[in-house]
Amino acid sequence: MPTTETKTDLDQLCINTIRTLTIDAIQKANSGHPGLPLGMAPTAYVLWTKFLRHNPKNPHWFNRDRFVLSGGHGSMLIYSLLHLTGYESVSMDEIKQFRQYGSSTPGHPENHLTAGVEVTTGPLGAGTSNAVGLAIAEKHLAARYNKDDAKIVDNHVYAIVSDGDLQEGISGEASSLAGHLKLGNLTFLYDDNSITIDGSTELSFTENVLQRYEAYGWHTQIVNDGNNLEEIENAIIEAQKVTDKPSIIAVKTIIGFGLPKQGTSKAHSDAPGVDAVKEMKRNLGWDENAEFYVPDEVYAKYREAIPNGEKLENEWNELLKTYTEKYGEDFSNLINKNFPENWESFLPSFEGTEAKATRAYSGEVINAIADTIPNLIGGSADLTPSNNTTIKNSTDFEPNNYAGRNMHYGIREHAMGGIMNGIALYGGLIPFGGTFMTFSDYCRPAIRLASLSAAQTIFVFTHDSIGLGEDGPTHQSVEHLAALRAIPHLFVLRPADGPEVSEAWAIAINRKTAPTVLALSRQKVALIDRTKYSSAKGTQKGGYILAEASNNEPKVILIGTGSEIGLTLQAKDVLESDGIPTRVVSMPCTELFDEQSAKYRDSVLPNNVKTLAVEAGVSFGWHKYADDCVAVDKFGASAPAEVVFKEYGFTVENVVAKAKALL
Amino acid sequence: MPTTETKTDLDQLCINTIRTLTIDAIQKANSGHPGLPLGMAPTAYVLWTKFLRHNPKNPHWFNRDRFVLSGGHGSMLIYSLLHLTGYESVSMDEIKQFRQYGSSTPGHPENHLTAGVEVTTGPLGAGTSNAVGLAIAEKHLAARYNKDDAKIVDNHVYAIVSDGDLQEGISGEASSLAGHLKLGNLTFLYDDNSITIDGSTELSFTENVLQRYEAYGWHTQIVNDGNNLEEIENAIIEAQKVTDKPSIIAVKTIIGFGLPKQGTSKAHSDAPGVDAVKEMKRNLGWDENAEFYVPDEVYAKYREAIPNGEKLENEWNELLKTYTEKYGEDFSNLINKNFPENWESFLPSFEGTEAKATRAYSGEVINAIADTIPNLIGGSADLTPSNNTTIKNSTDFEPNNYAGRNMHYGIREHAMGGIMNGIALYGGLIPFGGTFMTFSDYCRPAIRLASLSAAQTIFVFTHDSIGLGEDGPTHQSVEHLAALRAIPHLFVLRPADGPEVSEAWAIAINRKTAPTVLALSRQKVALIDRTKYSSAKGTQKGGYILAEASNNEPKVILIGTGSEIGLTLQAKDVLESDGIPTRVVSMPCTELFDEQSAKYRDSVLPNNVKTLAVEAGVSFGWHKYADDCVAVDKFGASAPAEVVFKEYGFTVENVVAKAKALL
Repeated sequence: MPTTETKTDLDQLCINTIRTLTIDAIQKANSGHPGLPLGMAPTAYVLWTKFLRHNPKNPHWFNRDRFVLSGGHGSMLIYSLLHLTGYESVSMDEIKQFRQYGSSTPGHPENHLTAGVEVTTGPLGAGTSNAVGLAIAEKHLAARYNKDDAKIVDNHVYAIVSDGDLQEGISGEASSLAGHLKLGNLTFLYDDNSITIDGSTELSFTENVLQRYEAYGWHTQIVNDGNNLEEIENAIIEAQKVTDKPSIIAVKTIIGFGLPKQGTSKAHSDAPGVDAVKEMKRNLGWDENAEFYVPDEVYAKYREAIPNGEKLENEWNELLKTYTEKYGEDFSNLINKNFPENWESFLPSFEGTEAKATRAYSGEVINAIADTIPNLIGGSADLTPSNNTTIKNSTDFEPNNYAGRNMHYGIREHAMGGIMNGIALYGGLIPFGGTFMTFSDYCRPAIRLASLSAAQTIFVFTHDSIGLGEDGPTHQSVEHLAALRAIPHLFVLRPADGPEVSEAWAIAINRKTAPTVLALSRQKVALIDRTKYSSAKGTQKGGYILAEASNNEPKVILIGTGSEIGLTLQAKDVLESDGIPTRVVSMPCTELFDEQSAKYRDSVLPNNVKTLAVEAGVSFGWHKYADDCVAVDKFGASAPAEVVFKEYGFTVENVVAKAKALL
Repeated sequence: MPTTETKTDLDQLCINTIRTLTIDAIQKANSGHPGLPLGMAPTAYVLWTKFLRHNPKNPHWFNRDRFVLSGGHGSMLIYSLLHLTGYESVSMDEIKQFRQYGSSTPGHPENHLTAGVEVTTGPLGAGTSNAVGLAIAEKHLAARYNKDDAKIVDNHVYAIVSDGDLQEGISGEASSLAGHLKLGNLTFLYDDNSITIDGSTELSFTENVLQRYEAYGWHTQIVNDGNNLEEIENAIIEAQKVTDKPSIIAVKTIIGFGLPKQGTSKAHSDAPGVDAVKEMKRNLGWDENAEFYVPDEVYAKYREAIPNGEKLENEWNELLKTYTEKYGEDFSNLINKNFPENWESFLPSFEGTEAKATRAYSGEVINAIADTIPNLIGGSADLTPSNNTTIKNSTDFEPNNYAGRNMHYGIREHAMGGIMNGIALYGGLIPFGGTFMTFSDYCRPAIRLASLSAAQTIFVFTHDSIGLGEDGPTHQSVEHLAALRAIPHLFVLRPADGPEVSEAWAIAINRKTAPTVLALSRQKVALIDRTKYSSAKGTQKGGYILAEASNNEPKVILIGTGSEIGLTLQAKDVLESDGIPTRVVSMPCTELFDEQSAKYRDSVLPNNVKTLAVEAGVSFGWHKYADDCVAVDKFGASAPAEVVFKEYGFTVENVVAKAKALL
């Protein structure tokens, strides 16, 4: 072995147990990524046995330190650690079921499957932004709820990050913001192994990473030997001393340490084969025939985490009890997102209001409920005045004011998404963040991960169509509603007026383990006379009959969403006057509509009535509900909104003509 | 005015003409972004009159320098420059039509609309990656085609970049790669005005930008006074002296220079109002009542570019003529993407081949045609061995070998997309780049821009479904085919076997002004017996009858794509044996199918025959063609591919049952 290791036999045994569990699981699964776990096992061992405050018997203990494995491909590292320290979520049987259907040990760590996994990682860079979000959540809650004599929120966030993570743009965005915010509760442990899938980092990644992190305002260190426990421990101690900066520690490691192909890209992934497994075990002084073997003393060492964790949680429970008694605040309501029973009564009814853009209504809703739902923490990717996301009764979240509820994410949409997911998965907080709908593309990987990882993240996407106007096709959403609707488990809500905006926010806030997209207009929408038409309560069913045909027997149905509802109502009037009974269905959320009973859906959209969908976006996806569409199946154009709408066929005449053509 | 300007009256007049044209256009349009053009007018003036080699009378002259306005919101800057230097694409009438329907002066610059605009910018960060792509293209063509005595490719790339550009992750990715690649032909002029939409950059962007660029390996400079022409000129001269590094020059400017609200976020965007326009003109010593006014001497100065440009192009034409005569290479064939007439004969027929993954067939196609289509330049975002993107008869594109045709983009999917667009829009080259289909989300904004800007960029997305297997739901595409199909003008091709892969590449390569996505399987696909079933030539129509029903009168139609075609053929056999005549339609490209005549489409998918779509992705979008779907309307799962397929209903039994249920 190239590196001299200076540590006790038990230390070495504990480290090599991670390595051998990893390689046995990967060999059995015949797939997986040994490179990171084998190289980073010593760092992880030091972190988990000397620093990480957690309670294996209660993975959800609120004040635990958060550990993020941003290089999620190294999942056997965290599964090994969870198993060894005594988490019930990862039994030895589950390790043997690594990467098999229905196991708690999937290819990449998934928080919704496996207790002890904080966030879902694998798509590179995501974990770095999640970690920043977890650190922000801690700072925010500490600033708002801690008392001088009762620091009920007080934990650290550690992330193991890889070369791939640090090449991805999202990590740069998130790290720049973390440096700006002086997040001293955040430590990155960088697996600096100089290897990626294509080969040496010399092929494409020769920048000075630590100098870059200095430029971001981080504290930086190098551990020259990733097998030297003292060096690792000292670096973490030094990092923790610096409380006004996040820290990154570049740990020089050998990818796939112990494997015959260690130090090469071939050690990154794939089962090495039985012979190589045996050779590795011999290299490590392990019994080459022992499989999935954990020496008793290794279990004993790691499982000191159990009594330690119980003690930590008990102390915290005591502290919380005192806190609650002394300060009269029930922090558990916040943690558990228990809202006041009457919270929805604070939602504006928008009766007798003037016509506004739905983004403006949204801003009013936010401010009407922000005091009642203290969980909310808002923000925008530098479009605050446009997205109407400011909580006016609060301040900016800044390094000198972590209690502020308004985040300035900067022009960093992707990081905003990932950070919001981290905030949401910290627990207790409900983040919402804004940008233009078109730039949902920039944070799309984070939207997907929000959905996969059951994070209550609320995306406030304004300027949601060609109605954006003069900024032109680079900024006009056309395909984005469809593209977002395609993401499983995500609700995309496109409300049509003030009352629907209130309902949409109610849905988003009550949806405690899933994300929601709010699609909002830049331009004013038509006032819908709710005394004449149905109540916006139908929003709760995703789609509803807004205006029934004159004789209750529609010959044609117009489905509209958002800013096009006004047009459908005008078209209905013309069609009715032409003797064609016409129903208008408002469909703010197709996904929610799909969840209704077949009976309900058929009552709204009977099979035997011709249906025309009217939406200022691509027709893609609408044929499930409609026979034809007034849609935008090309890119937009730079012009005043009303001109673009007209040129693109969003006129009463065209809707009427298309509806008639169906009959 | 806060800054003393030391320059000739004519210089000042030329600079202020940009400013006044800008403000007049914005005021007339009642929208737009004055902040950048007003602040950067002096820099742009110096660049365009002292450095930029271009020919206004031939915007497509191949060896011109490339100018990128990455902060595309400052579009009036480039429209002013194009107009003033004599480009016919931007007449004074077009400037007066700024941001109006059908004009050549849309809100953000669009290359496909306006000659002289190199790339479409506005979505922040995009332009930085395009600029890197343009610089790569120049280095590559120079290395491959220049001779010691005939440097026919020899130009520089300049980009004006904004705070927003440099906050976006994509710029970090692209800049890191540019530094690694030592692109000495690239200069960023950074509009360092300390203001973004939310307010001061102190709110979220306090990193040391130039230190970060040093870390990337760039040459960095500061111009302390963005109104000082000598300082600007000297910095550009210094930048050009450094030929082994890209350069960034931070130009300290005052946003919205001259406006009453200069130096604040309020000067970033929006028409300032008639009074403010007049005040600005007075501040600049301009006639406050003059609108859209260009002094004769200003035209005279700027339009020196016309004879200068003609001279440059004439000299180059002479050089090219000599080159062609001496070296016998017709470089214009490359520039114009004139392929040998018989090039398609080099496409493999894959007759009698073994079953392989479609990504493997794709790798074979690439290597079969790479010599015949020298325009191709390949690469991958660090998944080269998985994406099968290597041109084996070439080498890596690296700083010491710009002639290499294999790019190592690193783990930077978004930058890869933007860089490829830049390479494509440089002219002559056809870039293709690979990643996993799921990570198409990371480069989605670049895919959209490829489509909007008519760039022939080929995206090679492998591992295109749950068939990815053990890596699990974080890596398994589910919604991506649908989401990509939603993008206007983009072709998404999902071939089913070797012959369809060949056809798909033929489509992508012949599509010279539009991008294509190739969706390819990780896993082996079934061999389709093309002697028994139809030829893969039908791929050219997007969808075709692969296997006709036994009696030519189908009772049911199964539509399949890609790796699911094998399953549909098996299901057909069972259905036929159960007495149900069944047609199988292969539908590798719905967009191309939609372009066929109604008659053809009806012949393939008659209205009166029940149709079942079978695709390992979301059902979203399929109801346009099918009555029901065997689809994946949830996230995938970590397990061997065959297990996931079975658990998710991709079995002959399920397809048969679903087909029967339709009858």
